[in-house]
Amino acid sequence: MPTVSPADFPADSVGLVTPQLLHFAEPLALACGRSLGDYQLMVETYGQLNAAGSNAVLVCHALSGNHHAAGFHRADERKPGWWDNCIGPGKAIDTHKFFVVSLNNLGGCNGSTGPSSLNPASGKPFGADFPVMTVEDWVHSQARLADRLGIQQWAAVVGGSLGGMQAMQWAISYPERIRHCLTIASAAKLSAQNIAFNEVARQAILTDPEFHGGHFQERGVIPKRGLMLARMVGHITYLSDDAMGEKFGRDLKSEKLNYDFHSVEFQVESYLRYQGEEFSGRFDANTYLLMTKALDYFDPAAAHGGDLAQTLAQVQAQFCVVSFTTDWRFSPARSREIVNALMAARKSVCYLEIDSPQGHDAFLLPIPRYVQAFASYMNRITL
Amino acid sequence: MPTVSPADFPADSVGLVTPQLLHFAEPLALACGRSLGDYQLMVETYGQLNAAGSNAVLVCHALSGNHHAAGFHRADERKPGWWDNCIGPGKAIDTHKFFVVSLNNLGGCNGSTGPSSLNPASGKPFGADFPVMTVEDWVHSQARLADRLGIQQWAAVVGGSLGGMQAMQWAISYPERIRHCLTIASAAKLSAQNIAFNEVARQAILTDPEFHGGHFQERGVIPKRGLMLARMVGHITYLSDDAMGEKFGRDLKSEKLNYDFHSVEFQVESYLRYQGEEFSGRFDANTYLLMTKALDYFDPAAAHGGDLAQTLAQVQAQFCVVSFTTDWRFSPARSREIVNALMAARKSVCYLEIDSPQGHDAFLLPIPRYVQAFASYMNRITL
Repeated sequence: MPTVSPADFPADSVGLVTPQLLHFAEPLALACGRSLGDYQLMVETYGQLNAAGSNAVLVCHALSGNHHAAGFHRADERKPGWWDNCIGPGKAIDTHKFFVVSLNNLGGCNGSTGPSSLNPASGKPFGADFPVMTVEDWVHSQARLADRLGIQQWAAVVGGSLGGMQAMQWAISYPERIRHCLTIASAAKLSAQNIAFNEVARQAILTDPEFHGGHFQERGVIPKRGLMLARMVGHITYLSDDAMGEKFGRDLKSEKLNYDFHSVEFQVESYLRYQGEEFSGRFDANTYLLMTKALDYFDPAAAHGGDLAQTLAQVQAQFCVVSFTTDWRFSPARSREIVNALMAARKSVCYLEIDSPQGHDAFLLPIPRYVQAFASYMNRITL
Repeated sequence: MPTVSPADFPADSVGLVTPQLLHFAEPLALACGRSLGDYQLMVETYGQLNAAGSNAVLVCHALSGNHHAAGFHRADERKPGWWDNCIGPGKAIDTHKFFVVSLNNLGGCNGSTGPSSLNPASGKPFGADFPVMTVEDWVHSQARLADRLGIQQWAAVVGGSLGGMQAMQWAISYPERIRHCLTIASAAKLSAQNIAFNEVARQAILTDPEFHGGHFQERGVIPKRGLMLARMVGHITYLSDDAMGEKFGRDLKSEKLNYDFHSVEFQVESYLRYQGEEFSGRFDANTYLLMTKALDYFDPAAAHGGDLAQTLAQVQAQFCVVSFTTDWRFSPARSREIVNALMAARKSVCYLEIDSPQGHDAFLLPIPRYVQAFASYMNRITL
């Protein structure tokens, strides 16, 4: 393989980035009633914090995301961070203007303290003994991260899907510490169907004989089958029916049908198996359970008897809400619930409904109208 | 439990019914290239065949259905057959007028020859050695059943979902033997998303360590986990998002949240686990695989390069196509494809789009407009 020099990175890339591991010694009280005594957060930053500390943007990740949102970890890395489409010099979140902070959430499996970390109490991995995290817990841990980085107030907190929930929770929990909240392809709470899909994924993992009640690490195994199934079912919900039809249709894997119980007959089966297989080798099963639970539990309106407008009465941030027409995981109707509640609470809100065939995954893709509107919103933020 | 006499059956019930097992000795050639040497079909009939043999209606079942479509097997049976809402004296398929035939399809697990039957070649259960069946194979086996019962031509062939595919295939394979074809909540072929959901279900079963390559019966075990997951994911696709929201919303199982990785927090989780658990105790895993494969393979237009109108050019039956607004497994758009192709082929077709919140499951439910329109169509069939 030829050596690639940083000069070979695209001009609009943040280039080579180095994550940093930050240690927090003060215990963090959690929604579940327990507390995390001591923890680490894996963090990446792009751009420079200005002298006033007024240009910081927090990027929150979704279910399987992590701190590596933009740029490259190595000169020969093939794929950049997960939101490289939107973060970089001249991009929607312009690193010439903003100081961008991205972290692996607590409970994650990419360097931050989580179920695969050693439990100081036992000297063994936490496994299923790791406390369940909520979106509120994450926001509290992110507030401490802001303190550490010298950021009193975010210019914006931005996220898609579960990341959008964190952005919304920021505006609710720390109204004076966030000027703009961008919640993309998200929802104010999961529907019964959303929970049901999460439950299928959880049952796939929990019933895998290699799960061992969440203590598989000690036994040197992983619940690969369960994770694979969880990812497969998740993946279907990330894509639209149309997008899958467009991408695969009924195309066959081989020239003719095999007519048996186990063969891969259609390309879409092959694709899903590959996605599941690949994911099961790199993601922690307990983290997957934890992330789905955090999604299920999110319901900020519950504090006000289900009245989201009342919950949002306290926010000071201006909102930008974005949805995608064929997203059936968090459909435009779910975004409109947020918009309606913000309007009822007399808050400032922009709403963008992007026409796109790609389903929920659209929030990660370089769809021109989406990226341009996103950039316009970010550009008008005063520092 | 008090003894219940037949007099206690509802007046519009077919009452006590006794299935019969019919034996077929002549080998049946199958689409997969193999043949089934000798087989049995479990059959129920309701009403009386008239002297002209002109009043016979074939009812075809869906993925997890069977021959027990109406009435009761025992005086103390709690639930009647799966389509009792639509079959009986004075009901949509009126047993005063029609002689109704319902069977467990080949490959099933309710009495007809299938994977759990003994393979005469080995003396052991077929398991995964049972041949894969297609909708065409079933229709051929049903044609032999018609011969056996002295039915030269069906007044109607009727089915929902996978059953609707069999009705459609009847009109294509035996144009002169079917006068009316009622295809309800069905499609002319699966979409990539439909196949993807089937593949998740199959992988759940195939990767269950208790599956043993499909030969679990010999080992005295069942792949219960896999079947449970398959049913859970299937169940989500049978219900609409709205129906699940209406039925469960975010209602909690207990008074407060448990905040752990494994507890059932929401009612919808509890419901799904129950459905999966119950199903896994009564359905055969190999039959489940076989049924999903039959769904995947169904694509009558493929014989004419994807041109459904050309495939339907040969039909003589009049069609009634029914869809339900919130069915996202086989949406109204899929039914309209059938209607459009029939119109392009200059065939007679009625199309009913029923406004209902229940999703795909609607075809089994006593929705007034649906049942009334269904009855009207059946009533005007001349014998």
